[in-house]
Amino acid sequence: MRLAVIPGDGIGPEVVAEGLKVLSAVAPDLETTPYDLGATRWQRTGELLPDTVLDELRQHDAILLGAIGDPGVPPGILERGLLLRLRFELDHHVNLRPARLFDGVRSPLAAPGAIDMLCVREGTEGPYVGNGGVLRKDTPHEIATEVSLNTAFGVERVVRYAFERATARPRKHLTLIHKTNVLTHAGGLWSRTVEEVSVEFPEVTVAYQHVDAAAMFFISDPARYDVIVTDNLFGDIVTDIAAAVTGGIGLAASGNLDASGTNPSMFEPVHGSAPDIAGQGIADPTATVLSVGLLLQHLGRTEQARKVDAAVAFDLSTRDPQATIRTSDVGDRLAALAGG
Amino acid sequence: MRLAVIPGDGIGPEVVAEGLKVLSAVAPDLETTPYDLGATRWQRTGELLPDTVLDELRQHDAILLGAIGDPGVPPGILERGLLLRLRFELDHHVNLRPARLFDGVRSPLAAPGAIDMLCVREGTEGPYVGNGGVLRKDTPHEIATEVSLNTAFGVERVVRYAFERATARPRKHLTLIHKTNVLTHAGGLWSRTVEEVSVEFPEVTVAYQHVDAAAMFFISDPARYDVIVTDNLFGDIVTDIAAAVTGGIGLAASGNLDASGTNPSMFEPVHGSAPDIAGQGIADPTATVLSVGLLLQHLGRTEQARKVDAAVAFDLSTRDPQATIRTSDVGDRLAALAGG
Ligand SMILES: CC(C)[C@H](C(=O)O)[C@@H](O)C(=O)O
Ligand SMILES: CC(C)[C@H](C(=O)O)[C@@H](O)C(=O)O
Repeated sequence: MRLAVIPGDGIGPEVVAEGLKVLSAVAPDLETTPYDLGATRWQRTGELLPDTVLDELRQHDAILLGAIGDPGVPPGILERGLLLRLRFELDHHVNLRPARLFDGVRSPLAAPGAIDMLCVREGTEGPYVGNGGVLRKDTPHEIATEVSLNTAFGVERVVRYAFERATARPRKHLTLIHKTNVLTHAGGLWSRTVEEVSVEFPEVTVAYQHVDAAAMFFISDPARYDVIVTDNLFGDIVTDIAAAVTGGIGLAASGNLDASGTNPSMFEPVHGSAPDIAGQGIADPTATVLSVGLLLQHLGRTEQARKVDAAVAFDLSTRDPQATIRTSDVGDRLAALAGG
Repeated sequence: MRLAVIPGDGIGPEVVAEGLKVLSAVAPDLETTPYDLGATRWQRTGELLPDTVLDELRQHDAILLGAIGDPGVPPGILERGLLLRLRFELDHHVNLRPARLFDGVRSPLAAPGAIDMLCVREGTEGPYVGNGGVLRKDTPHEIATEVSLNTAFGVERVVRYAFERATARPRKHLTLIHKTNVLTHAGGLWSRTVEEVSVEFPEVTVAYQHVDAAAMFFISDPARYDVIVTDNLFGDIVTDIAAAVTGGIGLAASGNLDASGTNPSMFEPVHGSAPDIAGQGIADPTATVLSVGLLLQHLGRTEQARKVDAAVAFDLSTRDPQATIRTSDVGDRLAALAGG
């Protein structure tokens, strides 16, 4: 397995080290190439994602990313120039975010129930495309626009992926989240696409919710959800709610998939670079390890993925919730459990 | 006080009746004119909001709205043609949504803390403008767009309103919620505006959060928030999260304000028409009564507003959370408390 590794900024390198520890414990054929990208490189050289690096990344089976970001960098530079550029250039149209409440993990909800959902967020369209602009900047007549672009091609492939995942799960339930009553143009495309694709998956039951209502149900009754499919921006928000109710982003894993297999998919914890705790060895690497599980699953290494997930599930069920996290201890334990 | 009343659909008329009961108990000079608008009228006549009705509405001091909507009406018709049209025509640029955890109300959070926030959601711009379109509909080459429009004029007035509210509150704290790292065009306008207006309010401390992070903090630590200012779509989502953690939309009140006073402002519970429980007399009218409180406050009837709020606070603190709601009993109790 040829893996490109982007440790990134802040706690990124710390959690990635543990992710690799666990990965090599289950996949001995691992070959890694590190890539220095992120705030530090940009601050030093002004470079975000050189084309040569992008070409090299394409030669790998998958990419593992830690975290990108630094408060010293103006908003948008690293996101648009590096993180989102990777997702767009590598056609990561499926942004996969499972949210499961593991035994032993405390939810902030008083009665969370058995939460086990899989959010399929579109990754290459919607309001994330960067389309829009500013007119008469810094005057009382300034106008700023953001254009959400949605295509039948782009919506259909992610909807189809979501149905495929739903049909393989016990509950076989899919919920579309959008705001069709206000965003009628894009909403119409999304609803019609779900309706059309659903014909090919008669065993999957389908529900629809407006994003505002879903945001409430994620809190009042998150266990009702199975697979969710939604647009890029709504997905950004609802997956963070899902993370919050299942114990926080310390446990939230994600995969940015080119489901067609043409480009390498990229796996990353949902959390950011957390500069406030960087360098102290106290970041929780569990989200990165769970992302490694998604990576193995994506590469068809089902048995290795199962070992990683089982290690995390066991470790979480036996952790003392009061004890301080030691990043490398968690990695050691998970590597031993998964590799043992 | 000349009040236009739009009872609307489903439970709308039921909760509005109780809102008016309480309102007339504290404001004996009340004159009401009912307007028949909503799904039922549209289904009967095809009319949504005739211009003559709009003209009449403008002649009132304020509008009280119950709920609009019916599952038999395609998404967008009533929202774009009636609800949003009212907000846009009457220049309701401030969509005001307080979220307070009342004593006696059970939050779904295990440790909610003392939640008392005031969300100031922009009401006439952003992705709600209806701009966008569909090309090659129902073909594999369909493209659908949604354009978010943001103007210095529109952002500045709602930001200024939020600062004014923040400066009048004990904590004097304002949080801007946006997604400046992805929506850089609109995000830039919002951040610069907050920065500029903040100079006039040196006593207000200011924070910024991305909408995804805010969605998490609304769950992990909602008590940290005081006043929030945000765009129309983000506001739609985060105010429903705020409602969820403070006991649900049965208690969520809102005001659609033309803060300039040119047009009548409109007050409505955040919940919908709930056709599943309509006609049974079991809808909770409390959100409508709290909206009546906002109405009185907006009209400068501070003492009457205080009586309504105090009645709700007392009633909630003594309610049996297990007991079934009887819509008219709640209204009777609140009217007696507020008017006594
Ligand atoms: C950092 C940001 C661009 C990114 C996003 O909005 O997608 C992040 O919030 C995420 O969810 O991965
Ligand atoms: C019904 C819908 C148009 C409306 C909105 O999105 O603003 C509602 O959700 C609200 O929050 O008042």
